[in-house]
Amino acid sequence: MAYFDAASSAPLHPVARQALQASLDEGWADPARLYREGRRARMLLDAAREAAAEAVGCRADELVFTSSGTRAVHSGIAGALAGRRRVGRHLIVSAVEHSSVLHAAEVHEAGGGTVTRVAVDRTGAVDAASYAAALRPDTALACLQSANHEVGTGQPVAEVAEVCRAAGVPLLVDAAQSLGWGPVEGDWSLLTASAHKWGGPPGVGLLVVRKGVRFAPQGPVDERESGRAAGFENVPAIVAAAASLRAVRAEAAREALRLRELTDRIRARVPRLVPDVEVVGEPVRRLPGIVTFSCLYADGESLLHELDREGFSVSSGSSCTSSTLTPSHVLKAMGVLSEGNVRVSLPAGAAREDVERFLEVLPRAVAAVREKLGAPAGTATAGEAGALVVDAVGRRCPVPVIELAKVIGDVPMGGTVRVLADDEAARLDIPAWCEMRGQEYVGEEPADRGSAYVVRRLS
Amino acid sequence: MAYFDAASSAPLHPVARQALQASLDEGWADPARLYREGRRARMLLDAAREAAAEAVGCRADELVFTSSGTRAVHSGIAGALAGRRRVGRHLIVSAVEHSSVLHAAEVHEAGGGTVTRVAVDRTGAVDAASYAAALRPDTALACLQSANHEVGTGQPVAEVAEVCRAAGVPLLVDAAQSLGWGPVEGDWSLLTASAHKWGGPPGVGLLVVRKGVRFAPQGPVDERESGRAAGFENVPAIVAAAASLRAVRAEAAREALRLRELTDRIRARVPRLVPDVEVVGEPVRRLPGIVTFSCLYADGESLLHELDREGFSVSSGSSCTSSTLTPSHVLKAMGVLSEGNVRVSLPAGAAREDVERFLEVLPRAVAAVREKLGAPAGTATAGEAGALVVDAVGRRCPVPVIELAKVIGDVPMGGTVRVLADDEAARLDIPAWCEMRGQEYVGEEPADRGSAYVVRRLS
Repeated sequence: MAYFDAASSAPLHPVARQALQASLDEGWADPARLYREGRRARMLLDAAREAAAEAVGCRADELVFTSSGTRAVHSGIAGALAGRRRVGRHLIVSAVEHSSVLHAAEVHEAGGGTVTRVAVDRTGAVDAASYAAALRPDTALACLQSANHEVGTGQPVAEVAEVCRAAGVPLLVDAAQSLGWGPVEGDWSLLTASAHKWGGPPGVGLLVVRKGVRFAPQGPVDERESGRAAGFENVPAIVAAAASLRAVRAEAAREALRLRELTDRIRARVPRLVPDVEVVGEPVRRLPGIVTFSCLYADGESLLHELDREGFSVSSGSSCTSSTLTPSHVLKAMGVLSEGNVRVSLPAGAAREDVERFLEVLPRAVAAVREKLGAPAGTATAGEAGALVVDAVGRRCPVPVIELAKVIGDVPMGGTVRVLADDEAARLDIPAWCEMRGQEYVGEEPADRGSAYVVRRLS
Repeated sequence: MAYFDAASSAPLHPVARQALQASLDEGWADPARLYREGRRARMLLDAAREAAAEAVGCRADELVFTSSGTRAVHSGIAGALAGRRRVGRHLIVSAVEHSSVLHAAEVHEAGGGTVTRVAVDRTGAVDAASYAAALRPDTALACLQSANHEVGTGQPVAEVAEVCRAAGVPLLVDAAQSLGWGPVEGDWSLLTASAHKWGGPPGVGLLVVRKGVRFAPQGPVDERESGRAAGFENVPAIVAAAASLRAVRAEAAREALRLRELTDRIRARVPRLVPDVEVVGEPVRRLPGIVTFSCLYADGESLLHELDREGFSVSSGSSCTSSTLTPSHVLKAMGVLSEGNVRVSLPAGAAREDVERFLEVLPRAVAAVREKLGAPAGTATAGEAGALVVDAVGRRCPVPVIELAKVIGDVPMGGTVRVLADDEAARLDIPAWCEMRGQEYVGEEPADRGSAYVVRRLS
């Protein structure tokens, strides 16, 4: 049994558990009160704030605790946008931000603001020039994650911060995936994070607003957390969050090396062990524990079940859309294959033997899923114009690609095949398959139901 | 050492601690995930929702967990107002709601909505007729607490719900102070509560929206908690909250009787032990554990410190404004004395001996504070028109009242005295003093600095 989904949530760190235990006894009272129990809670809260600020690299009075990373992102974006409302209502985000950032951007758009979504390259990285090009005189705020939650790619935060700083635009960094590994470099203006991602308890987020950044908290506020996070402070969980951040940081350098070695091994071995696989994400500038790959002719959910049966907990697709059929917005923005997607994110302390066993089990699991999906579904027929047509309408991903792969051999060299499909994922996966297979993706045409995707055989 | 401030936050119930402990091991993973750790977290979350819904008396799919009671109130009010925006933008609240409700009302007003604040009687209770009178064709929502957090007075929720129901207006009940004692009676539409008030952990609130109530969540949302509470679910704390609610309910009937006897004793003894005291709040229809009184010629903060030194943790003034000098909005709305205010709120299990010792210590504590404040400060002089004038400008409450009390004996029967004061609390406390002392409060006049409060000697 191995839990390989630390990017969703890490098991509680032993230090977090100890600290939580102790501060349930000492820190349950209202830290706003003046009697002894209140003063004790206040001291614990102050000490936790100092510790967290030191780990972030900010002043204690720049940092507030929120009830989650999502809440930190929502409050941070809303407050920064409102604080610069006079400048304008333009917001810049990358196309691969966490859904909490994208949801905040959607709300901003619905309220009359404008949003630019900066594109990424095939590794999932933005470049500073794209942010520079997106900046406008009415830009109120730019957002960029420190590293991607789905493929592990690190972002050039310091360069983007410099570009924003030069334009006088604050940059909010979502550091949820990286804060346990180290402070975020560069001259950012706001920062958010989430304790349960580094082994702290759930229920604690961080919102840092640098001195001098205009910030106007939105919604009802109270006197708690400098008026930036309303509601009774969860002191025991905050103490546990700060203590565990310190603890994981103490182990970070060594553990990062160890996990990087393990994920490097997965990156290298998976394409040799499993046919028709694409490992995605930046190979070098990346988080140590995350590796993501996609398997042609398989679907992520079935793979996840197959691996779960074998004792491995991994995730598939965009972390917040696993309950829907929408393909991951991250993989889509990268233009890489989304079908049969598996994200392995190793928790601190992940055992080498478990990784080896995963590599042993994976080929069988993929083969089993592919076999189940292998039965022909669409029908290849000669269409009116004599061109080959694959009808996969009504069939879910990865069936359209499977059917395409089955008939490509029948297409004369230089000839085309039309794949009829109405699953949204086909739009992403058919071009991705062409790129992997050295075939030409001609384009998409409207069809009676769904679309026709035209592919020319080159090899 | 006795903690008598349960209305702020209750110490963690042993059942909450056990449940938290167990579910930190079992419930740390993401309940949206399909692998075993995720399924386990989901099962725990579902079971907690069932248990909480049973205690509330609602369907499980009507209840979501939020990150605090404050968050439940903010989200509940915003969602209910938005859901009925077509009807209008009028909101009704009582004048003695918790600050989280009043803050939400202020935000609504700032956004162009209108708010009616329903007055209370001298016990702090509203009556259904006042709500009926406040209802308008454009009323989108009415809010009423189940019981007051500061004086313990129970509100006629069922009657108010009936009046609202007849007008087709949903009623949101803030049940933060009462849910541990029993379900809220009546045909309410929305309900909020906070786990740390009943001995659950901090970081968990409840928001219940009855089926059929129009509700449009505001701000960025995600797929969690039916789209009504964004962010990673705090499963361990939620499990502990539900388990402890069940546990305190099992003990509620017996414990309510026991605490009521103790607070009845405080209500009866305090006026006999301490001169110039007003016990405030409804004596019968009230929460079992809360008793509030105000001491003439003393200030709450000094009293709190004095009692803290003697080993008693109590609060003073409005629970969320103890860090400011504003007098409690609740006491102000009731028109009762706010100076020297002490709220005793007994936690479940409070010991009779501690209550006895409190009654022993209190007279000394009040006397000590009064002695410190006793030195003359304002100067009584014959004013131009021959009327007596007390100049207490620049002196904080309770000094103006102390000076008034010192000179009243010098005022000829039927004559008046003018108290010059610029402390906001004087506006409340001088009329309250007149009522307690059988003198006539003539009125307030503008003065060079602050106001002149005119009092006629009748006895």
